[in-house]
Amino acid sequence: MAIDPALFQENERLDPRAKAVRFAEVGELRCEAGGFLPSVTVAYETWGEPNSDRSNAVVICHALSGDSHAIGWWDRMVGPGRPIDTDRYFVIGTNSLGGCQGTTGPASPHPGDGAPWQTRFPIVTVGDMVEVQMRLVRILGIETLLAVAGGSMGGMQALEWTLREPGRVRRAFITASCAAHSAMQIGFNEAARQAVMRDPRWKGGHYDPGDPPAAGLAVARMLGHLSYLSEAAFDAKFGRRLQNKDTFDYHLGTEFQVESYLAHQGDKFTTRFDANSLLYLTRAIDYYERRSLQGSRSEYLFTSFDSDWIYPTHQSRALHEMALAAGCHSEHHEVSLPFGHDAFLLDGEHQGALVRRFLES
Amino acid sequence: MAIDPALFQENERLDPRAKAVRFAEVGELRCEAGGFLPSVTVAYETWGEPNSDRSNAVVICHALSGDSHAIGWWDRMVGPGRPIDTDRYFVIGTNSLGGCQGTTGPASPHPGDGAPWQTRFPIVTVGDMVEVQMRLVRILGIETLLAVAGGSMGGMQALEWTLREPGRVRRAFITASCAAHSAMQIGFNEAARQAVMRDPRWKGGHYDPGDPPAAGLAVARMLGHLSYLSEAAFDAKFGRRLQNKDTFDYHLGTEFQVESYLAHQGDKFTTRFDANSLLYLTRAIDYYERRSLQGSRSEYLFTSFDSDWIYPTHQSRALHEMALAAGCHSEHHEVSLPFGHDAFLLDGEHQGALVRRFLES
Repeated sequence: MAIDPALFQENERLDPRAKAVRFAEVGELRCEAGGFLPSVTVAYETWGEPNSDRSNAVVICHALSGDSHAIGWWDRMVGPGRPIDTDRYFVIGTNSLGGCQGTTGPASPHPGDGAPWQTRFPIVTVGDMVEVQMRLVRILGIETLLAVAGGSMGGMQALEWTLREPGRVRRAFITASCAAHSAMQIGFNEAARQAVMRDPRWKGGHYDPGDPPAAGLAVARMLGHLSYLSEAAFDAKFGRRLQNKDTFDYHLGTEFQVESYLAHQGDKFTTRFDANSLLYLTRAIDYYERRSLQGSRSEYLFTSFDSDWIYPTHQSRALHEMALAAGCHSEHHEVSLPFGHDAFLLDGEHQGALVRRFLES
Repeated sequence: MAIDPALFQENERLDPRAKAVRFAEVGELRCEAGGFLPSVTVAYETWGEPNSDRSNAVVICHALSGDSHAIGWWDRMVGPGRPIDTDRYFVIGTNSLGGCQGTTGPASPHPGDGAPWQTRFPIVTVGDMVEVQMRLVRILGIETLLAVAGGSMGGMQALEWTLREPGRVRRAFITASCAAHSAMQIGFNEAARQAVMRDPRWKGGHYDPGDPPAAGLAVARMLGHLSYLSEAAFDAKFGRRLQNKDTFDYHLGTEFQVESYLAHQGDKFTTRFDANSLLYLTRAIDYYERRSLQGSRSEYLFTSFDSDWIYPTHQSRALHEMALAAGCHSEHHEVSLPFGHDAFLLDGEHQGALVRRFLES
């Protein structure tokens, strides 16, 4: 497949951390769950350059609310001199299928009428997301990956990469993720979905894009943030400190800093995220289930965090054991950090050292 | 104070577990946070009879969504032959101030206009709730309690009982509770409050009682249930089992049993609970903070559960250490059970043996 050499030159003219999203058409998609998308656009960014034998490509897969800009949301892990070193590797970030940061999703125009797909959008799976990434990577002239890396939802994608076309991925770094959501993980996602779907502005998904179910989406995001931190992280960040005052106002409104934080996170999210996307993406990860890694020919590095109660260590250990049972080289490391699930985004040091060695090995 | 002997005879004519709520007027209340209630009614139930020197009374304090019917919601702990034995003790259950099961709360009629107080209701504290209980107990002719017992919010009330009038309570059994909410506990409550307050039907609290913010209240309750169970309890109850089917429907609606459970719990709650009550009660427990038990003359028994991540053991251990520092007899026991916070409601066996011995000691 022909490669446009401009793809790899554009970044050099830019601040390496500036957002420079490009788009690729990857064709129609028959979705695993039975739906059909007549055309799929992928938003992506790349950093660094392919080496002479094109053996240095690394795909980064984002978590629920992320995007193609891995050098931004994972800046302690990805960048010049970082563990996933854009001076050495050709790093590719994409927005996931079903998302709302440039890749085809429920907020994209339906080709039939130009109005957003909304809940006409077909159910997509983690496998569909990976299929789209695989097509993009081929368009970029890459046949095999040095590595695929991701946390949380991105970890499920990375796992799936190693199983779809065995041999196409040498190494997979999977952090704070799992082979299948537990009932509690599904429960947190469902409460978030219900917050959106019970908002009268949701209107069965066919909301006015100018008047979305922002209240429900904000509550859903608060719920997300509650699950991303740990008790210790909440204590350290907020404790029982009050918001801009020394004494209680004794009312139902904001009193504590943690309340203000959650409201801010919830409201901010509604300005950048499509409510239907949240439904489709959480549905996709709730459906996801792998019981074995038989057939994989990849090497695995799994990390988890002792304070992450929503994606607990035993899930990463189970992945590691599945990898060993499949005859793959695998390592699992539990990192002790108090940040909860967010640790996979915040930790460049411990994960970083492990990933640097893993990629260089 | 005169006692109506009928109070203690009525129960004998009834199924001992049937609900037989009575009401007492306890007068006006100047609230700790500055508000004023011109009259307060308390809904209560009693079981058993006072002994000759009225030294066998036990007050039971309920958690967020409970009511006076302790023999129902705490049936493994309270009843004939149970650890809190209604054949031996005169047991009093009350609905808390600010609640919606018969005691004055935001859904009660405002004496000025007969319409519900709603958000005209003053902020009430755990101390106010206990003040109301203390008045009721005096009306019932009881000066000192053998014990006060409660879990979660009820544990805060039990703690407060031991500090308001030292010497009035011999023993306090406090389970799955704390001296002050952490940021994470406040955060979960705030997300629940926001689910209600961002529901357009809430209307600043002045909703039509026939058209309440049921969507927000249901989501708030789902969030509560997520925090009441543990990962292991969710796995045991639901796992990844599907709802009345063998294969996915691949849609945004209910797929997993855990989703159906949460929706059912959320919807059921809206038929019996007032949305404003949820706001006032969660606010009261978020405000609550005790840094010392100095001055108490009570004996304490604290229990906590190793799988309870929302009221974790270290909070009960801290209470125990505060009791010892105040020179009080105190015990703390961590019970190993997989049910999460709900364990304090479900465990009659381990807690029960401890409480039976504590009350008999």
